[in-house]
This record gives sequence, structure tokens and C-alpha cells, in this order.
Amino acid sequence: MSDSPFTSLVEFRNRLSAAPTPDEAATSQAEARNAQLTKPAGALGRLEDLAIWYAGWRGTPRPALERPQVVVFAGNHGVTAQGVSAFPPEVTEQMVLNFQHGGAAINQLSAAFGAKLDVHALSLDRPTADFTTGPAMSESEVVQALRAGWDAVDPESDLLVTGEMGIGNTTAASAIVAALYGGGAEQWTGSGTGVSGAALDAKTRVVADGVALHAETCANDALQALRCLGGREIAAMAGAIARARVEQIPVILDGFICSSAAAVLDRISPDALAHAVAGHVSAEGAHARILKNLGKEPLLSLGMRLGEGTGAALAIGVLKGAVACHSGMATFAEAGVSDS
Amino acid sequence: MSDSPFTSLVEFRNRLSAAPTPDEAATSQAEARNAQLTKPAGALGRLEDLAIWYAGWRGTPRPALERPQVVVFAGNHGVTAQGVSAFPPEVTEQMVLNFQHGGAAINQLSAAFGAKLDVHALSLDRPTADFTTGPAMSESEVVQALRAGWDAVDPESDLLVTGEMGIGNTTAASAIVAALYGGGAEQWTGSGTGVSGAALDAKTRVVADGVALHAETCANDALQALRCLGGREIAAMAGAIARARVEQIPVILDGFICSSAAAVLDRISPDALAHAVAGHVSAEGAHARILKNLGKEPLLSLGMRLGEGTGAALAIGVLKGAVACHSGMATFAEAGVSDS
Repeated sequence: MSDSPFTSLVEFRNRLSAAPTPDEAATSQAEARNAQLTKPAGALGRLEDLAIWYAGWRGTPRPALERPQVVVFAGNHGVTAQGVSAFPPEVTEQMVLNFQHGGAAINQLSAAFGAKLDVHALSLDRPTADFTTGPAMSESEVVQALRAGWDAVDPESDLLVTGEMGIGNTTAASAIVAALYGGGAEQWTGSGTGVSGAALDAKTRVVADGVALHAETCANDALQALRCLGGREIAAMAGAIARARVEQIPVILDGFICSSAAAVLDRISPDALAHAVAGHVSAEGAHARILKNLGKEPLLSLGMRLGEGTGAALAIGVLKGAVACHSGMATFAEAGVSDS
Repeated sequence: MSDSPFTSLVEFRNRLSAAPTPDEAATSQAEARNAQLTKPAGALGRLEDLAIWYAGWRGTPRPALERPQVVVFAGNHGVTAQGVSAFPPEVTEQMVLNFQHGGAAINQLSAAFGAKLDVHALSLDRPTADFTTGPAMSESEVVQALRAGWDAVDPESDLLVTGEMGIGNTTAASAIVAALYGGGAEQWTGSGTGVSGAALDAKTRVVADGVALHAETCANDALQALRCLGGREIAAMAGAIARARVEQIPVILDGFICSSAAAVLDRISPDALAHAVAGHVSAEGAHARILKNLGKEPLLSLGMRLGEGTGAALAIGVLKGAVACHSGMATFAEAGVSDS
């Protein structure tokens, strides 16, 4: 499907809106199989729903989950000039090196769950513009970032996790969801890597200022909110999640920043995220509010707030377990076990 | 440590009460290491607490988790004569064969998380006595079941999950916790494999009758509650969890029935379960109430209610992820990343 790339936001939107739906026959057959497995009906709880959902997207009633891909995108943010982060901006590049050397949390979690990890540093020497003074990106820049995400997806993978690194990017994510959902910047702004008190108040004002400045451009246009308030790594996650939708690759969403990218897609097309589950709910307070807007119940709730894709990578284990039970268990008939 | 077996409930209690505490130096060193890893302080949430707890019990600040063991015990229950289950009693033995042939959920989850799975069928041809007419087990029988669990633990393993199979055993577990905690049988009795309505009312009455019949014997003696109301697989889980405590092997508790066994130990010694975390909270309603009494916050909440150790086995993934991050991540100094 990647032979027809998009060159504008309109074309991107059209690609996403034309994406195929899950395989209904595979879904029905997976439901029928689930009902015959050697356990009381419903006793595996959400694992059963997960396996059936996964089977539908993979187009087979007895799927395997063997080639998960984790893609981490990194970007720099002009809005850090406003002092919104507890860490200096050079940490973005330092952490990219840490990813490349295998030293970050996402390296350990990807290895633990057998996922291929790809890292894409996106023009780190050219931070986005400070969104309190102008749009973060031009249309050409945001399209390029969406394409970077789109192209980063391995069409042979059978699960996608998108993660990010970018000092200042909780500020950008807060601004995006404040623009999409309204209700005031303070509802959508949190401590990120660790700001509080007066610094958090200042961060909240920055978010409010950005949303106000771009309100007209962003009204009823989620991709403009992404362009004016987002960052390259956020746009790339949106591009990757959209590509996975087109390729029928299931996605596990990570935390607050990943979910802000997903929220943009959700506004474009009502079933844009049908192929995605929420891996976890972050300790970043507004994440739970995004998930509620997306109608997604998180798989894990462990107080994580690191980003990088870590919460979603941890949830690969849950999905692997669900698929392993569904596809590996014996039926009542096969095992000679009496049904109730 | 297994060269001095117990031959009575008093000796078992003494073994458990004399068990060693975690390594304080390893705990402190793990805390210090955690503070230097390349992430904002606290950003891995509960994964950080889990890794430090695991390090303390394993006696090393940078532990590995490589040899998890899942042990499933099966037992039959005379109380099934009261019609408390949706499945016939022969399903216990049929499911043991299913475990042995690799067809059950716990087989798939053990394999998915690299755990060795051992299955012990405990005198399936001799069900416990119907506890509404007499004690479920004699003292010699319950000691033998505790020993079966104790001996089933591989001292070379670095994590233990205990699971069970036994038609009728939610009834036994409900009776145990009703005896331990009081408050009325209806608070502790649920649908198990799938009873509801009048059948659930009848099951609740059976629990109440058993608790009343043995109230005097069980008063202030949790091991007598285990003997009079429990079953061999429940006693074996208690024995295995106790052995792990003595061997300093961390434990992930499974659902309602496993937790009833753990509750017995918790009543014997206030830190009997210091080496244990709750893997999940079951859809069996009273499980959350047991966990509250034990002061354990579950790692997962996915609506599972299958037993076999499945919820705890799924949580092996969470603990593996936590240990992998803790032991594998680079420090700020190692990675050349600026601290905040």
C-alpha cells in the first residue's frame, strides 16, 4: 500500500479514511473458537476480547504474534525556550544516543518482549518553532514528519508500538489536546518529566497562549492543531499509527504524548483507531482524560510516565499472552474435557 | 533449607515464622542504582518498586529474572456433593490431563513468559470430606498437602507462581476467608466457574454452614481453617508459598483461591507474604476484598477468573520488564545524559 505516498495533509487524510476494516470472517471464526476453549466462558476476561480483536485485524482466526515492532521518534521543540521542562533540550539527542547504545528503558522492554526497536531522530538540529509566537511547523514540515512515521512502519510486522523522546513534548501534547477537546489548558497540562508549582503554572500559561494564538487555524481541523502546536515526533507517531491502520497491523498506544497523536487521527476518521488498544494509563493526569475521549480502556495502570513507548511495550506481554492462549489452547473436544 | 521437614502444623508454623528477611544492603544498593538510571525520577512508577523489592529478596542490587517456576496443584472436593459447581468433579482430572498435554491456558502463558510448569495431582481419587458434615482433612492429610507444596518448589528458581485446579474449590476458598475474616458468607462467595441465582444462593449457604460447623475449631487458628474448610491444592499452595519465603524466592500471587491460601499464611506471621506481590485482581468479586485485607495492590486488572495461576503467570511479564529495566538500563553518567 505504500506505493502511493501522500504529499499533502489532504492526501494523508484521504489515505487514512480509505483504510480497510478488519476481517469479519476471521473475527467470527475467532469468536467461535474462543467459545470452545478449555475454560469457563469468559474466564480469561479481556484477554479473550484482545485475541478476537487481534485475529480480526490479522485476518486469521488463530493468529500468532511474532514480529512486534517498536518505533521511537525523537524531535526538538522551540517551545523549550519558554522554560517548560525540567531537563535541558540537549537531553533529546543524548537520549537518542542512549537508545542507539541500548541503555534506555525502551531498549530493555523491547528486548524482553521480543520486539524489534527502530529509532528515528527527526531533524534534531532544527527544533520546531516556538508555538507561542507562530506555528510549530509549516505544512511541508508536518507532511514530512507524517511521512517519516509512515515510512518507519515495517509492513511485515504484526504489531506496532510507537514511542517518542523530545524535551518539551508534553507541552506540545497538552496544547494539541487542549485545542482538540477544549476545556482550558489547566485540564490538559501536567508535570511532564517533573515540573511543579510556579513552573507548572508557567507551563500551563504557555499551553493556553499557544492554543489561543492558533485557535482560528485549528478550529475543526485536527491536522492543523498537529501542525501549529505539535512536534515532528508527534506527527511521526500519527503517521505510523495511520500506516498501521492501512496495513491492518494492530497498534498498542503508549501514554500521554502518543495518545495526543492518536487523538488527531481519531478526529479525522471515526474508526481511525479501531486497530489500536491503550497499553497503559500514564501518571500524567490528563492521559486518562484523553483515553476517555478515545473510548479506550487501558490494559495497564502502573504509575508509569516515561514515554519512549515503555507503557505500550510492557503491554506487548499482555497481548502476547492473550494471543498465545487463544491460538494455543485445546478445545473441550480436543482435550476430552466435559463442558458445563 | 529443605533438609528439616515439618511433620505437624506447629512445626510448619515455626518454619514459616523463622524465615529470613530480605537483604537490606541489596535493597539500599538497588534504590541507589534506580536513582541514577536514565529516566526522570519515578517515571517507571511501580516497575521501580518491583525491581527494588525483587533485588532485596534475591540479595543482589542488579538481579536477573531467568528461571520462573509455575506450579499447579489439583485436588478434589467432597463439598461438590452439595452441587456448588457448574462443572462435574471429573473435570479436575480431565484438566490435569489437559495440563500434561499442553492444552490449557496456563501452558500457553508459562511458555510465553519462559516459565517451567510443573503439575501435581494430589490424591484425586480421594476427595476431601464434605466440610458441611465434618473437617475437609485430617491433620495428617493437611500436613501432607502442605509438604507436597513445599517439596514442589525448585530452590533454584528465581520466581514462583502457584496455581490450582479443583472443581468446587472456590467454595472451599470462600469458606476459608469467611472463617478468617468474618463478615458473613455472602461477602465471600461468588460465581466461581459460573453459578448464579438460586445456585449461588445455595453455594453461599454451603459456605455459611461449613464456617458455622467448624467455627470453634478454627477460631484464631488459620491452619485449622485450612484443614477444616480447604482442600489439598489450597494447602499445597500455602506450603509452596511458605517454602518460597524460606528460600527467599519472590512469589506472584494468582487470584481468589491462591489468595485464600496466602491469607492463611498472613494470619500465621505478619510478614509471611513480604516476598509476594498480587499478580492480578480477579473478576471473582471477593478477591479484591482479600487483597485489601492482605494490603496488596494488584499488578493487573483484566477481568480474569480462570485460576490455574493464569493471572499471576501473565504478571510475570510485568515483573520481567521491571527487572530488565532496572538491571539493564544505563545510568546518567554511563550514557552521558544531563540530569535535571
